Amino acid sequence: MATLGDIGVSALINILIAFAFLLAFALLRIQPINDRVYFPKWYINGGRSSPRRGGNFVAKFVNLNFHTYLTFLNWMPQALKMSESELINHAGLDSAVFLRIYTLGLKIFVPITVVALLILIPVNVSSGTLFFLRKELVVSDIDKLSISNVRPQSIRFFVHIGLEYLFTIWICYMLYQEYDNVATMRLHFFASQHRRAEQFTVVVRNVPQIPGHSISDSLDHFFKTNHPDHYLCHQAVYDANKFAKLVRKRNRLQNWLDYNQLKFERHPEKRPTKKTGFFGLWGERVDSIDFYKQQIKEFDKKMAEERQKVVKDPKSILPVAFVSFKSRWGAAVCAQTQQSKNPTLWITNWAPEPRDVYWRNLAIPFVSLTIRKLIISLSVFALVFFYMIPIAFVQSLANLEGLERVAPFLRPVIELNFIKSFLQGFLPGLALKIFLYILPTILMIMSRIEGHIALSTLERRASAKYYYFMLVNVFLGSIVTGTAFQQLHSFLHQSPTQIPRTIGVSIPMKATFFITYIMVDGWAGIASEILRLKPLVIFHVKNMFLVKTERDRERAMDPGSVDYPETLPSLQLYFLLGIVYAVVTPILLPFILVFFAFAYLVYRHQIINVYNPQYESGAAFWPHVHSRIIESLLISQLLLMGLLSTKKAANSTPLLVILPVLTLSFHKYCKNRFEPAFRKYPLEEAMAKDIMDGTTDTEPDLNLKAFLADAYLHPIFRSFEEEELVEVRVDKVRVDRHQSYADNVQTSDLSSPSPPHYSYQLTSPPQDINHHGLPPLYAYNLSSPPHYGYHYEVEP
Amino acid sequence: MATLGDIGVSALINILIAFAFLLAFALLRIQPINDRVYFPKWYINGGRSSPRRGGNFVAKFVNLNFHTYLTFLNWMPQALKMSESELINHAGLDSAVFLRIYTLGLKIFVPITVVALLILIPVNVSSGTLFFLRKELVVSDIDKLSISNVRPQSIRFFVHIGLEYLFTIWICYMLYQEYDNVATMRLHFFASQHRRAEQFTVVVRNVPQIPGHSISDSLDHFFKTNHPDHYLCHQAVYDANKFAKLVRKRNRLQNWLDYNQLKFERHPEKRPTKKTGFFGLWGERVDSIDFYKQQIKEFDKKMAEERQKVVKDPKSILPVAFVSFKSRWGAAVCAQTQQSKNPTLWITNWAPEPRDVYWRNLAIPFVSLTIRKLIISLSVFALVFFYMIPIAFVQSLANLEGLERVAPFLRPVIELNFIKSFLQGFLPGLALKIFLYILPTILMIMSRIEGHIALSTLERRASAKYYYFMLVNVFLGSIVTGTAFQQLHSFLHQSPTQIPRTIGVSIPMKATFFITYIMVDGWAGIASEILRLKPLVIFHVKNMFLVKTERDRERAMDPGSVDYPETLPSLQLYFLLGIVYAVVTPILLPFILVFFAFAYLVYRHQIINVYNPQYESGAAFWPHVHSRIIESLLISQLLLMGLLSTKKAANSTPLLVILPVLTLSFHKYCKNRFEPAFRKYPLEEAMAKDIMDGTTDTEPDLNLKAFLADAYLHPIFRSFEEEELVEVRVDKVRVDRHQSYADNVQTSDLSSPSPPHYSYQLTSPPQDINHHGLPPLYAYNLSSPPHYGYHYEVEP
Repeated sequence: MATLGDIGVSALINILIAFAFLLAFALLRIQPINDRVYFPKWYINGGRSSPRRGGNFVAKFVNLNFHTYLTFLNWMPQALKMSESELINHAGLDSAVFLRIYTLGLKIFVPITVVALLILIPVNVSSGTLFFLRKELVVSDIDKLSISNVRPQSIRFFVHIGLEYLFTIWICYMLYQEYDNVATMRLHFFASQHRRAEQFTVVVRNVPQIPGHSISDSLDHFFKTNHPDHYLCHQAVYDANKFAKLVRKRNRLQNWLDYNQLKFERHPEKRPTKKTGFFGLWGERVDSIDFYKQQIKEFDKKMAEERQKVVKDPKSILPVAFVSFKSRWGAAVCAQTQQSKNPTLWITNWAPEPRDVYWRNLAIPFVSLTIRKLIISLSVFALVFFYMIPIAFVQSLANLEGLERVAPFLRPVIELNFIKSFLQGFLPGLALKIFLYILPTILMIMSRIEGHIALSTLERRASAKYYYFMLVNVFLGSIVTGTAFQQLHSFLHQSPTQIPRTIGVSIPMKATFFITYIMVDGWAGIASEILRLKPLVIFHVKNMFLVKTERDRERAMDPGSVDYPETLPSLQLYFLLGIVYAVVTPILLPFILVFFAFAYLVYRHQIINVYNPQYESGAAFWPHVHSRIIESLLISQLLLMGLLSTKKAANSTPLLVILPVLTLSFHKYCKNRFEPAFRKYPLEEAMAKDIMDGTTDTEPDLNLKAFLADAYLHPIFRSFEEEELVEVRVDKVRVDRHQSYADNVQTSDLSSPSPPHYSYQLTSPPQDINHHGLPPLYAYNLSSPPHYGYHYEVEP
Repeated sequence: MATLGDIGVSALINILIAFAFLLAFALLRIQPINDRVYFPKWYINGGRSSPRRGGNFVAKFVNLNFHTYLTFLNWMPQALKMSESELINHAGLDSAVFLRIYTLGLKIFVPITVVALLILIPVNVSSGTLFFLRKELVVSDIDKLSISNVRPQSIRFFVHIGLEYLFTIWICYMLYQEYDNVATMRLHFFASQHRRAEQFTVVVRNVPQIPGHSISDSLDHFFKTNHPDHYLCHQAVYDANKFAKLVRKRNRLQNWLDYNQLKFERHPEKRPTKKTGFFGLWGERVDSIDFYKQQIKEFDKKMAEERQKVVKDPKSILPVAFVSFKSRWGAAVCAQTQQSKNPTLWITNWAPEPRDVYWRNLAIPFVSLTIRKLIISLSVFALVFFYMIPIAFVQSLANLEGLERVAPFLRPVIELNFIKSFLQGFLPGLALKIFLYILPTILMIMSRIEGHIALSTLERRASAKYYYFMLVNVFLGSIVTGTAFQQLHSFLHQSPTQIPRTIGVSIPMKATFFITYIMVDGWAGIASEILRLKPLVIFHVKNMFLVKTERDRERAMDPGSVDYPETLPSLQLYFLLGIVYAVVTPILLPFILVFFAFAYLVYRHQIINVYNPQYESGAAFWPHVHSRIIESLLISQLLLMGLLSTKKAANSTPLLVILPVLTLSFHKYCKNRFEPAFRKYPLEEAMAKDIMDGTTDTEPDLNLKAFLADAYLHPIFRSFEEEELVEVRVDKVRVDRHQSYADNVQTSDLSSPSPPHYSYQLTSPPQDINHHGLPPLYAYNLSSPPHYGYHYEVEP
């Protein structure tokens, strides 16, 4: 077991690593050439269009103002400047509430740390007989500060139990406050939002196919009958998955074309060539530019055909639709009620934001959803408990002998002693490392197979799966020896009362491991987050090979968004560690506090300067965060009971039994009290907002139908230029962007005559739109190319 | 262990008992004097107003037609004559669907019995080595027919596993069909119902108290704002629990008065007297008639005061209301949506039928409901697992020594040898028997404390509690030795995989016990049900002491209704037994079949001729029945796995693992598919019915507001006569009844001047009602006594 000194050394190393990252960040971020990597949010917001420092040629790429190098931590106070309401305006409610998780961590753990250190450390230290055996150093220093140091049957366990009660009450109180706050913020956020398509829209799934009637007709008929006063219009959904695949492939070809053209421009003496075979490894050598141009042309033809097919073929209309209502009240009613006698038909739910829709899953037949969920649940269970089996199998293959057999030419290198020992140490772990690296992707794919139709839901589901993986394999796996599979086996064959004992008794011994884990994963990990090494490299690579215009550069900067599927679970793991160890080994708490404070600063900076959220779910993840913390409380109570029962504290342990019951009741109360705010839209709110709109509407003439007409059009049916211009509408720097757009059109060879027309159409008054006769099935307009035409359609 | 011969003897005894009951029933039911006990439904329906056979004086009481004595089983074909749709009209959907549970049992178990007997018995019998040891008779005959007879590791277990799959699939298929049928019947029943108050009404709980506004004002304001197009009116609820108590007490006094007056009439020579003290045991001797008249007068005064208080005091208006809407659509929307930002305020639910409302629980503050539920859950858990502790305590007191100490004068009697041995055998069991007798009442009280506001919900909840009690204490308790508490203790300290083994291995051994149980509880118990011994005795006692008029006699007949809290759980227990033993000991199945067939006949007869349902819930209990059968399937699968694993059938047992997963998926699918029909009212249905009403309305002029105005008035605020007359309105034999009513008014001394006036008011055209100016708060009218006056108010 580690001594306090060992921990100190480990802490020092990790602090140094963290500082190295911070220093690197400080140096890199003030270089103008990196400005788009470290401040993309301001470019997207329109707050900045080029790096701040101009001057001579060198200063364009390197920062020559040496004064700024000295104040390398000044991003921290800057990150704290923005108020919460500004933050919500700047980055959305999701991001603001995400930051509140860190402040919640601080609010919960600062008082707990103070109380635990002041009360428990003296109690633990002064209690043990071990304390007087200091000379022999039979136990680690950490253990002397923990509950292990207390004699069995000691009366002092009442202190621990009392504190467990106190901490539980405190955490529940903070959770209640926070849930209340977040729920209010969510409702306030919706109330203060401008008129948005999703407020009036409901997604209807499993529309029944009536022979002789189109989906569109049955939709119209059904909602005109059953919501006569409120139904406005609907938008059918096309199965454009095949088309989307073509678009993606074409984009890849376009990238290659751009790359080759750029290469040719830089070295005009030599036309780039490539081999046509597999991965360009063999086959006939051809001119690259011609080859890709030819390929793109073929693709354009294919896509035009496919698009015609999608639009013309009634079979490509999915039994899903976005139905819009005249008022928020009407939409709220439709989303919350059962429509049909058969509850598996005409299933209505709130529509996600247009940008939050995961279009591909809309094509999944509704009937298969139950089976998909079942299969994925079983797979996740298998993944959590048996993931070691395939990895062990791969490990058994990926040894040095196998490598030599596959690649005999490497033998001389491998036979070198120091490389051999390195590989022998490295190879077996490689499969595991690769698996852990791609695990979030696997979980995301699993969530996709489950068939959720919103990106936000997908991310939440992936996050839940990742949390359970970590709970079993990081938390339990570290405490109990053996693989998760062995644990599962032993748990199934142990009595249910034995399990908390087995785990509880190992808890204090693993404190040093988790302290190290917090420092490596929490401290150094977060510091690496701010450095954005991967986006930095990608940006510069793209900049070098693909970027021809300012617009390309903008597209290359890829701000990303908070990676909820990975960040939330690890955050929840820290809550679990803090809550479990608060009473057992309180010395772990300061390390968690440092993590929360540091991570808060880093993410605040990133959210202000970097991330550009893909969607706005209105903090829909909060109920999950709340439930996970409640779960952590329950786990901590069970484990403490197990631990105490091995300490023969029979007179005090039964006092703990009531605590889980109270915690569960609290959870149930909170669920009743606050969760509906995240699931349903109260009619009172809807009506209030409708009334407000009716009286204080800033755009009283805006025709709602026109406003909603193409809100839920598959994004693939819009050309990219057009999409950008639609965004421009809400931008402050409209003129700026239009100018740069016009430049792009001239400089790029993606000449498209139609987008400017269409983009104005959207901003033009509604009668103009009506003049164009937009039917509810707006996508029909796709058949009139001039309006929606893809740039490749009109290419020469 | 019992041999087949033992079972035969037991069967014979039980069949004889059952026949004795049936014979007694056949004799008693054809006596005209018992006509009101065995055919009350026809009196209530108005199909019969006096016993069928008239003739001379003796024939009024005793059946002299000896021919009818010979055909003593002819009620059976009669019971089968009525078609299901007639049955629904006659007794309601609840009763019709209740009978379907029995036919479902038959549909499930007839094919299973045939297959199991044909396939499993030969497999089991031919398999064992035991078969060849017949001479020694080391095992019971039953065991030779069961799975116990199969050699360990035998390949024949594949037959059992295959049949378990087959039976599961068959049961699931039948369950699906039946759920589908019942859900359709429910929707059809609602669709075919005439205009009813509950279709337009929603019960709103936790109406916030706004200082300076009455509950009524805030209700009006809230619903006018948030449901402007649909809100019609509301009825406040008064806290009349104290008043109801007074009414109950007064009724008791009235009974005593009636009794004494009748006594005096029969023996005019001696005026009845009583002592005023405790239970009439001591105190001053007074004239009974005067005493009770005096007491009633005092009560009337108290009640008048209390009534004034209830009506005048704004504090007696509860934060609960029945809110009515202009259309079913409006009510369906309001019931299914969240109204307020704070989801614990303005909670809306479907209103139960007026006669189904459990008024007392409306006064329970909403905040306390969560705590009540928690406390009751814990109590039920304690009751199920620890009920033996208090009973053992009582038993230790209630022995002969204790009895002698308390009642020394009994000593000579007790010391008699045969009485002593009888008591020693009897007393210890007495406490347990009393407990089991009052258990349903205890569970019902517990459900009431939980705070449900509908009688139907109360009965369903009590039924669920009783089922779990039986599952643990009858099913598991009989299989595993020891009290439930000991079982719980051992289960907590066993590994989860060990539990099904422990139980599974004992299952075949207990088959004979359960066969006996089925015969005693099922066969003889059901036969005693048809005899109606208790109501018979009570009716004749009342007839002797209390009945002065025909109306009193009608009231004394007490038809009762199906006792769901006791019947459903035992029914579900039979399903459990059948499903568990189908594969293990198939010889048990025929006994269950006999039970289902016999009970079906008996209950069909009772429902047609006796029971008068208190409420109509539209078969709301069906989802519970369905879930319990699914639970039984899961239990049987787990236990079979346990049993097989002790048989070392390692190669076949894993095949069973997938079955529970499939069963659970099926359950989840059914829940999604059908349960909403029992929880929500689809808008499509509501709208269709609204539209139908609008076009084909038979009472187009009826003002809906007047129709709904007093639908949800606390029944205690109506006098009994009035209530009866309101019922008359829908009766076919209107004239008949009015006549008898007029008779009653003249012969009874409960002279009430107002009811006839009021009763016509209800049937008179709406403008008449409007003329009386019924406000939404209809109960205010109570302050104008002539309209609603209680008969005691105008008494001299």
